Amino acid sequence: MTMTQAVERLYRIQRELQAYRNVRGLLYHDASTAAPGKSAASRGQTLAVMEQASARILCSGECRELLAYLTPRAEELPRRERRMVQLMDRERRWRDAVPEEEYLSFQKLLAVSFEIWAHAKEADDFSMLEPFLEQVFAACRRISAWAAPDRPPLDVWLDRYEAGLTVERCDRFFDVLRTGLVPLLKRISAAEPEGPEAEYPLEAQRLLSHRIMDLMGIDRNHCALSESAHPGTTGLTKYDVRITTRYQKNQFAPGLFMVMHEGGHALYELHTADEDAFTCLGAFASMAVHESQSRFYENLVGHSRPFLTFLAPVLQEYFPQQLGGMDEEQIYRSVNCVRKTPIRMEADELTYPLHIMIRHEIEKRIFSGELRVKELPQAWNDLYREYLGVEVRSDREGVLQDCHWAYGSIGYFPSYALGNAYGAQLMQAMKREIDVDRCLREGDLVPVNGWLEEKIWRHGARYEPEQLLESAWGGTFDPGVYLRYLEQKYLNLSCAQ
Amino acid sequence: MTMTQAVERLYRIQRELQAYRNVRGLLYHDASTAAPGKSAASRGQTLAVMEQASARILCSGECRELLAYLTPRAEELPRRERRMVQLMDRERRWRDAVPEEEYLSFQKLLAVSFEIWAHAKEADDFSMLEPFLEQVFAACRRISAWAAPDRPPLDVWLDRYEAGLTVERCDRFFDVLRTGLVPLLKRISAAEPEGPEAEYPLEAQRLLSHRIMDLMGIDRNHCALSESAHPGTTGLTKYDVRITTRYQKNQFAPGLFMVMHEGGHALYELHTADEDAFTCLGAFASMAVHESQSRFYENLVGHSRPFLTFLAPVLQEYFPQQLGGMDEEQIYRSVNCVRKTPIRMEADELTYPLHIMIRHEIEKRIFSGELRVKELPQAWNDLYREYLGVEVRSDREGVLQDCHWAYGSIGYFPSYALGNAYGAQLMQAMKREIDVDRCLREGDLVPVNGWLEEKIWRHGARYEPEQLLESAWGGTFDPGVYLRYLEQKYLNLSCAQ
Repeated sequence: MTMTQAVERLYRIQRELQAYRNVRGLLYHDASTAAPGKSAASRGQTLAVMEQASARILCSGECRELLAYLTPRAEELPRRERRMVQLMDRERRWRDAVPEEEYLSFQKLLAVSFEIWAHAKEADDFSMLEPFLEQVFAACRRISAWAAPDRPPLDVWLDRYEAGLTVERCDRFFDVLRTGLVPLLKRISAAEPEGPEAEYPLEAQRLLSHRIMDLMGIDRNHCALSESAHPGTTGLTKYDVRITTRYQKNQFAPGLFMVMHEGGHALYELHTADEDAFTCLGAFASMAVHESQSRFYENLVGHSRPFLTFLAPVLQEYFPQQLGGMDEEQIYRSVNCVRKTPIRMEADELTYPLHIMIRHEIEKRIFSGELRVKELPQAWNDLYREYLGVEVRSDREGVLQDCHWAYGSIGYFPSYALGNAYGAQLMQAMKREIDVDRCLREGDLVPVNGWLEEKIWRHGARYEPEQLLESAWGGTFDPGVYLRYLEQKYLNLSCAQ
Repeated sequence: MTMTQAVERLYRIQRELQAYRNVRGLLYHDASTAAPGKSAASRGQTLAVMEQASARILCSGECRELLAYLTPRAEELPRRERRMVQLMDRERRWRDAVPEEEYLSFQKLLAVSFEIWAHAKEADDFSMLEPFLEQVFAACRRISAWAAPDRPPLDVWLDRYEAGLTVERCDRFFDVLRTGLVPLLKRISAAEPEGPEAEYPLEAQRLLSHRIMDLMGIDRNHCALSESAHPGTTGLTKYDVRITTRYQKNQFAPGLFMVMHEGGHALYELHTADEDAFTCLGAFASMAVHESQSRFYENLVGHSRPFLTFLAPVLQEYFPQQLGGMDEEQIYRSVNCVRKTPIRMEADELTYPLHIMIRHEIEKRIFSGELRVKELPQAWNDLYREYLGVEVRSDREGVLQDCHWAYGSIGYFPSYALGNAYGAQLMQAMKREIDVDRCLREGDLVPVNGWLEEKIWRHGARYEPEQLLESAWGGTFDPGVYLRYLEQKYLNLSCAQ
């Protein structure tokens, strides 16, 4: 094998692997939008075959031989190809460590348990999901033992979403937040304005979503919007991204901000480099970096005071009766009211990290053996009372609200909170170079997109998350930036009342 | 290899192949419903990898060895497994004959040309599609030459959809129809009632679709309905079937009868045998048999006089203002009026086969070299004038109306007309055993479904189409049955005016 041949093979194998990744993405996206209600078992069969086929490519003699040839020659490779070899080898080791049978039965299990979750949530019946969740956690424990027998299982899974993340690092981050947020919440939670109660026709909400997507510069030729019970983004390739949202009749905010959230994810996927498409670099640095982009648009842009100057009249255009009597400050307050809701996805920015801490705490307890799956609802409700002072009235509004665990995404939740913190630090850095407030007031997101594309999007998975972010921030991670942002925002809101 | 091992391997390979089939189905279904407008090139890459992977399984040493082992031992196998070996070997020979590069570039081409077709139709601009269609026809010609160098290309493609079908057999069938239909059309086309002009709200049309699907006994847990520009059915597995329809604001009939059409396809897919799922038998006997089921429900049930006795009050429930003033006979006449429309999918039963004959005639001329792709619109319009006396005013209403050619489905169209004829003969046979008219008058489709499941659906691909149909009919194919059905129906409609 010559170097040229090896590089050709490197690209071909990646193209094949990416095709399987796209197919898996489409199968899951379809499952949450268009698939009939009891098609999961059938889909599980298909997913298992796809999973197996892609694992076989990655662990094939050909791929093994290629990586064995290229790894010692990495220094001769250009940076991009060197990174490809590193990422492929990391993935190959993971797949190699886990027996094929284990992986396949895991895939089948997830397809079914994801469907069961939807039925259980609808029926408000945790006991339907319990045996499947039991199996998911058990499988995750076994898989992590195959992959890294000497490391704690939750560390292994955290690391899958955010390279280098551990329970210990999470705990340190959450400690900083808890120390700052709990007293802050006590100071301001007493007086909160009520959101405007009215009916917001779905058709108008849908039109507004499209308006906002256009404003965000999301290329509709390559990004489609649909609706699903659990909104999400699926980037098949940078040329084919899907986002979903979910509307509520009596509130415009959840549907709108979900579009901004998923739209932030979409922009990242859409703006990776053309030459990285169909390679493992045409992806993202980590899930927390991904979440930093979504929560940047949802919160730091969408819920900000300057953007509301632009947004308020737009909202009044779509909902003249419902919002016509309010001024922009009132609308700003209504979308930022601190609500002690049991639902993570309806949480304000201030209480949001507490929802995440609860989930992280439960994952820790499950893996330490301290908590059993059947005790989940009770533990969940107790933690909501303790952290947020909220009484959870049903499992649907409690432990069944999120699909992540049923979907096998153990260790994913901290990415959301980290994403918030990363985003706050990105905003701080952006403001050193751009008059962001002016852009938001004028609804001109072009400079904002330009900065993010330059610093984050175009790099795809070319760098480790830490390296990418430190370069964008011009410094190291400091959760204090996020904490101070929250303090300032909510104390201002509180004082001005 | 023992016989037991061989049979195990036979099932495993089929399970894998079916997974790829499901994925291809989903990719195409998604393309026509949810995918963003310019995602085709990206999808083409994925499709090509999937196509390649499944061809590699079918043409692998393992599969070849298996078929070489089982084929001479076929007599020792139970009937089902024997048929699997036969079908797999037929498919393997086809794939083996065509070079991989040819197949892959064909898949990529189709993904793009399908997308271009949609844009060209919207823009009413055949020249956009022309170069792609040129490539599709050329590729089809090359592929048929690889597969069967000594046979006429169109015969090769006709045979892919209907085993044993040839241009000569098509021509004989169409000659019978033409001889009967052209004079019939002259006798009755002078006086035709006009359909009721009104607005039919889309939301009511959507609700009606679901009502009709329930009436047809379509299991919604395994069959989803959505909307697309070009309606169709995608059977991923018998547990996951998708149908789409398309509504028109000023007519209720097209959307409704499209649901009955696709619903007929869906019932077939949903009712293949459980033990055949994830094997090549969990499919259908041929495309014309498939179309016989769809057009059975659309026409022989949906457009029949007795069913209108049941349907008329249902329609009036959904469209009280629009249809309240009509009696069932008037509604029956309005949905059966003979219309010289340029659009195949809006055609009545009487003129429908003429639309098909035009397409067949064009395919013949293209492959004989008599007609060039760029001359297609002119030839199309001339044939519409000649066969139907219709002036085609735009390519959108002409040669661009169907996606089939852009989609690579050359030689598919005759299946529609054959399906009509097969269906008429099925109805004749059914009526010997069941009081079908009473069932339709009462809206009781259970006995009708029962008969079709018994005679057709549950057999999947276990028999060649001819064998299956002759057993259901209790006789051989007689296009005269179809012709007499049309004569009787339309002469009655005409006399009673």
